[in-house]
Amino acid sequence: MILHQSTWPDIEAYLQRSTGVVIPTGSTEQHGPLGLIGTDSVTAESIAHAMADLSGALVGPTLTLSQAQFNLAFPGTVSLRPSTLIQVMVDYVESLASQGFRYFYFLNGHGGNVAPAMCAFQELHAARSLGTRAAGPLRLRLRSWWDLPEVNALRQGLYGSGEGMHATPSEIAITQHVLPASRRLDELPASPVLSTDFMKNHASDNHLDAQSHRAQFPDGRVGSHSGLARPEDGARLVSVAAEAATRDYRRFLEE
Amino acid sequence: MILHQSTWPDIEAYLQRSTGVVIPTGSTEQHGPLGLIGTDSVTAESIAHAMADLSGALVGPTLTLSQAQFNLAFPGTVSLRPSTLIQVMVDYVESLASQGFRYFYFLNGHGGNVAPAMCAFQELHAARSLGTRAAGPLRLRLRSWWDLPEVNALRQGLYGSGEGMHATPSEIAITQHVLPASRRLDELPASPVLSTDFMKNHASDNHLDAQSHRAQFPDGRVGSHSGLARPEDGARLVSVAAEAATRDYRRFLEE
Amino acid sequence: MILHQSTWPDIEAYLQRSTGVVIPTGSTEQHGPLGLIGTDSVTAESIAHAMADLSGALVGPTLTLSQAQFNLAFPGTVSLRPSTLIQVMVDYVESLASQGFRYFYFLNGHGGNVAPAMCAFQELHAARSLGTRAAGPLRLRLRSWWDLPEVNALRQGLYGSGEGMHATPSEIAITQHVLPASRRLDELPASPVLSTDFMKNHASDNHLDAQSHRAQFPDGRVGSHSGLARPEDGARLVSVAAEAATRDYRRFLEE
Amino acid sequence: MILHQSTWPDIEAYLQRSTGVVIPTGSTEQHGPLGLIGTDSVTAESIAHAMADLSGALVGPTLTLSQAQFNLAFPGTVSLRPSTLIQVMVDYVESLASQGFRYFYFLNGHGGNVAPAMCAFQELHAARSLGTRAAGPLRLRLRSWWDLPEVNALRQGLYGSGEGMHATPSEIAITQHVLPASRRLDELPASPVLSTDFMKNHASDNHLDAQSHRAQFPDGRVGSHSGLARPEDGARLVSVAAEAATRDYRRFLEE
Amino acid sequence: MILHQSTWPDIEAYLQRSTGVVIPTGSTEQHGPLGLIGTDSVTAESIAHAMADLSGALVGPTLTLSQAQFNLAFPGTVSLRPSTLIQVMVDYVESLASQGFRYFYFLNGHGGNVAPAMCAFQELHAARSLGTRAAGPLRLRLRSWWDLPEVNALRQGLYGSGEGMHATPSEIAITQHVLPASRRLDELPASPVLSTDFMKNHASDNHLDAQSHRAQFPDGRVGSHSGLARPEDGARLVSVAAEAATRDYRRFLEE
Amino acid sequence: MILHQSTWPDIEAYLQRSTGVVIPTGSTEQHGPLGLIGTDSVTAESIAHAMADLSGALVGPTLTLSQAQFNLAFPGTVSLRPSTLIQVMVDYVESLASQGFRYFYFLNGHGGNVAPAMCAFQELHAARSLGTRAAGPLRLRLRSWWDLPEVNALRQGLYGSGEGMHATPSEIAITQHVLPASRRLDELPASPVLSTDFMKNHASDNHLDAQSHRAQFPDGRVGSHSGLARPEDGARLVSVAAEAATRDYRRFLEE
Repeated sequence: MILHQSTWPDIEAYLQRSTGVVIPTGSTEQHGPLGLIGTDSVTAESIAHAMADLSGALVGPTLTLSQAQFNLAFPGTVSLRPSTLIQVMVDYVESLASQGFRYFYFLNGHGGNVAPAMCAFQELHAARSLGTRAAGPLRLRLRSWWDLPEVNALRQGLYGSGEGMHATPSEIAITQHVLPASRRLDELPASPVLSTDFMKNHASDNHLDAQSHRAQFPDGRVGSHSGLARPEDGARLVSVAAEAATRDYRRFLEE
Repeated sequence: MILHQSTWPDIEAYLQRSTGVVIPTGSTEQHGPLGLIGTDSVTAESIAHAMADLSGALVGPTLTLSQAQFNLAFPGTVSLRPSTLIQVMVDYVESLASQGFRYFYFLNGHGGNVAPAMCAFQELHAARSLGTRAAGPLRLRLRSWWDLPEVNALRQGLYGSGEGMHATPSEIAITQHVLPASRRLDELPASPVLSTDFMKNHASDNHLDAQSHRAQFPDGRVGSHSGLARPEDGARLVSVAAEAATRDYRRFLEE
Repeated sequence: MILHQSTWPDIEAYLQRSTGVVIPTGSTEQHGPLGLIGTDSVTAESIAHAMADLSGALVGPTLTLSQAQFNLAFPGTVSLRPSTLIQVMVDYVESLASQGFRYFYFLNGHGGNVAPAMCAFQELHAARSLGTRAAGPLRLRLRSWWDLPEVNALRQGLYGSGEGMHATPSEIAITQHVLPASRRLDELPASPVLSTDFMKNHASDNHLDAQSHRAQFPDGRVGSHSGLARPEDGARLVSVAAEAATRDYRRFLEE
Repeated sequence: MILHQSTWPDIEAYLQRSTGVVIPTGSTEQHGPLGLIGTDSVTAESIAHAMADLSGALVGPTLTLSQAQFNLAFPGTVSLRPSTLIQVMVDYVESLASQGFRYFYFLNGHGGNVAPAMCAFQELHAARSLGTRAAGPLRLRLRSWWDLPEVNALRQGLYGSGEGMHATPSEIAITQHVLPASRRLDELPASPVLSTDFMKNHASDNHLDAQSHRAQFPDGRVGSHSGLARPEDGARLVSVAAEAATRDYRRFLEE
Repeated sequence: MILHQSTWPDIEAYLQRSTGVVIPTGSTEQHGPLGLIGTDSVTAESIAHAMADLSGALVGPTLTLSQAQFNLAFPGTVSLRPSTLIQVMVDYVESLASQGFRYFYFLNGHGGNVAPAMCAFQELHAARSLGTRAAGPLRLRLRSWWDLPEVNALRQGLYGSGEGMHATPSEIAITQHVLPASRRLDELPASPVLSTDFMKNHASDNHLDAQSHRAQFPDGRVGSHSGLARPEDGARLVSVAAEAATRDYRRFLEE
Repeated sequence: MILHQSTWPDIEAYLQRSTGVVIPTGSTEQHGPLGLIGTDSVTAESIAHAMADLSGALVGPTLTLSQAQFNLAFPGTVSLRPSTLIQVMVDYVESLASQGFRYFYFLNGHGGNVAPAMCAFQELHAARSLGTRAAGPLRLRLRSWWDLPEVNALRQGLYGSGEGMHATPSEIAITQHVLPASRRLDELPASPVLSTDFMKNHASDNHLDAQSHRAQFPDGRVGSHSGLARPEDGARLVSVAAEAATRDYRRFLEE
């Protein structure tokens, strides 16, 4: 059930059977020479919509704008300041909480969303801890689709060290599956493999300023061999992710 | 050309021929018993995408979350505070301005976006007036599709006083055209016709708090006979709007 | 009854008979070579004070600082950022709301105040919609004096296309009436007449950054032939506006 | 020279001979059973306007809204949050600084303005210290008229311990002089004399929340015997204050 | 009793006997060629800890970062914007207020903290005046240790006009006593004595921007002959200050 | 070299040889029945100070207030809202960056600091990406001491599954070593062992609101058997952590 393709009486009825909602969070930022700028939104949204089919969960509109300042030197990137994104998430949750929603599951497609979401969650909880919000306690979870163990195993199996961190073949494969017309046929060499240290220190897109980042990664990919992506892999990734996320969401609703 | 379905080299190339971008602005709020919660986003986005075909303009991701607090008592509505929406618009524009974009044309589908957009525009200009932003002067325009004279004539011709202010047959007709599966077949009586005074005093969704608003308009429609909507009208509305907006956008680029 | 020329027991007594208040909103910005920088405050305040005489309404202190960044390149202009002005309006209303006031009628003298006021109104309503404010639902209205139909007819009759958008003869006539000593005797040629398009696109002072605006309108007037102003016109304008606004305010109190 | 009663060419010419401006800061808050709610604005503005006559200084519009939350339980009081007032002061100064003004002298009529003004000054300086503002270094001063040594001596001589802290006879005398019609003839007993400790601990209106404050001072006066006020005292106070402030302002311009 | 060296059951028990807490406020800023950057934190904290011994008061963690933008041109200075410091103080107080604390006594070691603290106090009170905070009315006091009459007499007796305003021998003497290893043996000439006017106009560290301030006071001292400091004076100052502050705190708890 | 125990000429000299600084980040929150409220600040600060000895790095004042809203129902906890903490970190870094510092290494003792720090880093980088800050590109790193591989191995070896997530024996052992007087001798049973799922979902202190959290963990410990802590373990942990962090910091300076 897709929130924005429903009517308000549909949602009023849904609230009788569930107080949970899934919110896809993506990004609008460069994804290398082959990847679409909207890649992260496409991946999160397609997995969340597949979850809706499997689980009956309500899925809200995708947050397509994210924190991605490190990619601003690549044209087409749109970045919200962390403080803006935190406010967006807070307003999104408070709106639905005022109507009775209690469980908010962010199905995430962009590493740079993690820290702002964690801050938004704590702002939301703090308002309840300090008594400035009337609506009751909330349950808030963010899950990046690639962190689901089944998905992680699959993408490592498919692409190994070519997966990398940004413009990964797995995310591009999903866009090829969802938007066939978007497939780029250009050849592209592998990206240099990242050190373990780099991956640890820059987890969740903890990157530098835009000018330094483009100097470091001139074509925009961060360790990913995007050219390995195949649409049939994308189909499998969406399916495996949706099933794993559905199980995870059901456990969440029981907390 | 759709920004999020392009790569960064595509955008880098586009900037050689144009510094303009079209940004659809919608809403996520109840639209009466028959209208989709995402109606305003569907209308703005479908017209903007048709503009892209006609004009070669780049179209960015739709702002699907808006200021709509007056509808919060209807489940499914998500509202950003005006201050949040202003920051989102400022960050959106500054991101692209830092890459060389100069002309920002907001193709608008929701009355409640007008005041926050006007404030965002003045914040953006003020940063340049006071010298706190390096990127040069901007051109900023918001156009609500129903305000284009050709569209206004068409929708008045089709629905007359049944058009009303919210959950209008014209916007619902567009969603029926774009998302055929969404069509609701329920019968629905006409809404009481609004006074001229009411329309003037509540222009651009200048409505009351959520509890008062729902008490005033119990099924969510504000003077609109949504049941008059027909998908074929929607097709015509999109086409007329896209042509009129394209002409308007071209004049804008010459300012 | 003027709030700042009353004592608190006076206001406590007033609240027994009315919960309405009129708040004049002006500006501090250049008004061309002949117009006073405080023109918009003088017009709004003189009409509001005349309303007090006619209606018994309480009139609060004038907001003399507005959003007017586009005029900053003309010395003497003082501009609040939209976000600042929104906060000022919110604090003004919440202060009086905590004491029992419920109807707030902003008698407006400056186009650039409209969008921030609309945002402030929605912030105020949203706090009630989401339950973060204890004081009950509010009624909020902004009325620009030149938009009152009787006034609009009068000023068009007096000055026709010479009225224009900024440093209008009608507003200057009012300052000549209220502050006779301020009358400037210099001759001044007519301003170029504005196109309909320009007037639509820049309604409510939706102007450019300060440097661009001064380049566009080197003497500060925007399409207005300020030199047509006559103090006797000003007297009539105040009187017609106060009567029309009083009727409008009385209808508002009944909503 | 009064800024809002001047034209922009007047100010452009003024800037050739001075970069200083005087800004009166008042308040809109209860002043006991006899005092006007606008007392602090009347006092600051009348002294500042007298300074303009003596010194040729430019005087800007009075900030009539202040931080005065402790008086909110008395109807008619309007209070800005400190954060709002700081932003207003910052925007006021930055507007004029962008045009070449450099010396800002706040002639103050309300104790509660002192701390927000000190914060605003440090925000303004910090923007220069950190290089986020282009306009050069500023000189910023706030002077409360009662702190000028000549004025302090006069008011102590006139009223002694009856002067107190709020709704003082000296401030009320000034309003009687400036607004003769406002004079209240009611008898009023003396207020209890304040302890030295209370005066030290609550200097600059460092008072409690509104409910506690009204419980402490049921008629709104804080240690002041307002009934001692005489209009002829007010005339003397304005004259002595304007002369002393003019000398002080001239020294300031030489720093 | 030191809050951060206690366990939560210790604090739960403390709240049974007192709802008061002492919060030392210092600074991290240059203190001339001989003074430590942390001088103000050392002084406030050592006096507050001595108060804990004398009075049984609970002492919270020291706010070591302050508003000190005027010293940013001296390396090692860390300054919070006033708006940041206000938020820190508000959060600190609201946290403990939500647990039942009511009396907050800020033992202050830095002039630049005064105005932000006064603003924070009024923000905290305003939330209660307007009903946006559930926790009841608060008592809030800031006391600068040098303002306690007994301390003021002692430091004037010890150093006379050599005391000055910044990098005072009295504060440096305290650091010599508390941190013997920090004592610097370099000779340093006296600082030029400050005029009365300067001291009045720059009370509570109301200084200029960083570049202007360093130009005015090239070695960082503001009128203080730091070289007069002796550790044995520091011991006396701490002892006299702790006793005086304890008496002051006890009176405060009875308000 | 400890920043606050140095003079400004010391720091000016240090900047000639290094542009790096270590900033300990702790917390002020309950740590179970045996742990000190300041545990996280003690651990981070003691390791950072040991790093100073090993590496010659400059160490700034500890951020002792953190985001810890989930612990507010335990008396003594002080929590900054994420937005406040982000601003504190931004101001801290910008202050030192304006003086020439470039490498900021946050030695972290509290999981709840991670997300706000990541947001602060991106705000700082974004200001450079968008050109609103003059000071050049920055290098920013946060390292939680328990995440250093050598430390992680040691604490797992010492305490195994008794380590848990909050009020861990390893952190308490460090406080026992640093503050011997603080050692509590009470017996305390083991905490229930946490599930892997819980640890993943609540990593970096992503906990619930305060009331829910205390209901879940009534004595404040989250899966930790604090009673296993021994001071001699604390000594080893500090020493191993300081060595590992020093190596890590040196690599960081070479990036």
